[in-house]
Amino acid sequence: MAANNTNRISLPVIKRLPRYHRYVQSLQSAGVTTISSSELAAILGTTASQVRQDFNCFGGFGQQGVGYNVQALNRELENLLFSGDSLPTILIGAGRLGRTISGFIAGEARGFTLLAAFDSADKQIGTPLGNLTVLDVATLPDFCAQYHPQVAVLCIPAESASGLAPSLPGLGIKGFWNFSHYDLASTAPGVTVENVHLGDSLASLGYRVRQPHE
Amino acid sequence: MAANNTNRISLPVIKRLPRYHRYVQSLQSAGVTTISSSELAAILGTTASQVRQDFNCFGGFGQQGVGYNVQALNRELENLLFSGDSLPTILIGAGRLGRTISGFIAGEARGFTLLAAFDSADKQIGTPLGNLTVLDVATLPDFCAQYHPQVAVLCIPAESASGLAPSLPGLGIKGFWNFSHYDLASTAPGVTVENVHLGDSLASLGYRVRQPHE
Repeated sequence: MAANNTNRISLPVIKRLPRYHRYVQSLQSAGVTTISSSELAAILGTTASQVRQDFNCFGGFGQQGVGYNVQALNRELENLLFSGDSLPTILIGAGRLGRTISGFIAGEARGFTLLAAFDSADKQIGTPLGNLTVLDVATLPDFCAQYHPQVAVLCIPAESASGLAPSLPGLGIKGFWNFSHYDLASTAPGVTVENVHLGDSLASLGYRVRQPHE
Repeated sequence: MAANNTNRISLPVIKRLPRYHRYVQSLQSAGVTTISSSELAAILGTTASQVRQDFNCFGGFGQQGVGYNVQALNRELENLLFSGDSLPTILIGAGRLGRTISGFIAGEARGFTLLAAFDSADKQIGTPLGNLTVLDVATLPDFCAQYHPQVAVLCIPAESASGLAPSLPGLGIKGFWNFSHYDLASTAPGVTVENVHLGDSLASLGYRVRQPHE
């Protein structure tokens, strides 16, 4: 049941974990106690062999032939996804999107603590954001030296992101949640990047809706 | 150069189009006139054969051996992604996330026109949202019958989404941009779903940052 081999787990498997967790959590809430890989696969719209392969990456979670214990599975997925210290996090870009995302981190997300928010615009600096006050991005290096944030959430224009992001791993940032209209690549070793391109997502939806599919 | 065979183009290719467009647009802005598939692949972090294969799905965009004309390529990608009528769109869920996303659609996105926003909460109904006023979700069927929106943006809790979404294709909705914590599957033929799971994205980032990668 232990999470072994975690260094070799592929990104697609890791990206599926939160979804497994959401479904297993709702099964537990619904009072389901045991579930087979094929039942789970049917709910998730995937195959039983995919489910078993994915879970095997983390040590299995279950016994052959008897299905998974839903409560134990939920606990294992919780441990994998959320155990350990909450990650000290900063927001860069306190415009409308940044404010919503910071609200999401504070209100709905688990495992992240928002330490500070930064902006370069005079109209944002000094304004309240939740229980924080937006700081001048010029003070970011000093802040990082003192408080050691590990995750940066980027909600700034592409130009600003391409200028700023490369310096952040040197300030101790190990992970980026990037909403900028810019493909941040993980160049520094040990640095993780999660790009969220809302514009790309919407454009591809538009393309598909406009195409005749009949 | 014509966009032929569009009915058989795979989803991963379609999902890459907006990214191609962003890069080609910035090349054009930078004054680049011609680019080879291998140069483009290097910028995008992919392979020349992937680029050529993807572009071949849409009729090619270029001539063997001479590279792509950046301006023509940009125009073709623009046409593919944004030509045709703007899609009449409704927002369902006018909370904080919904308001930000509606601002994104109105301010930054192309090809979508936000006709109306709906909510079920008394505290939201009747409040302004951009140049709209939030409507009672109970009036949604009448609204759809009269104004024929084609795209629904879902920014509501999972429980509400799972109850409401299945009825929307019957009201004429052809595409969903789904931010609900719920996997909306495209069940009705001709209906397109684009799920954006911010919670899953952040959870998988957290997992990767916490794992030692050395």
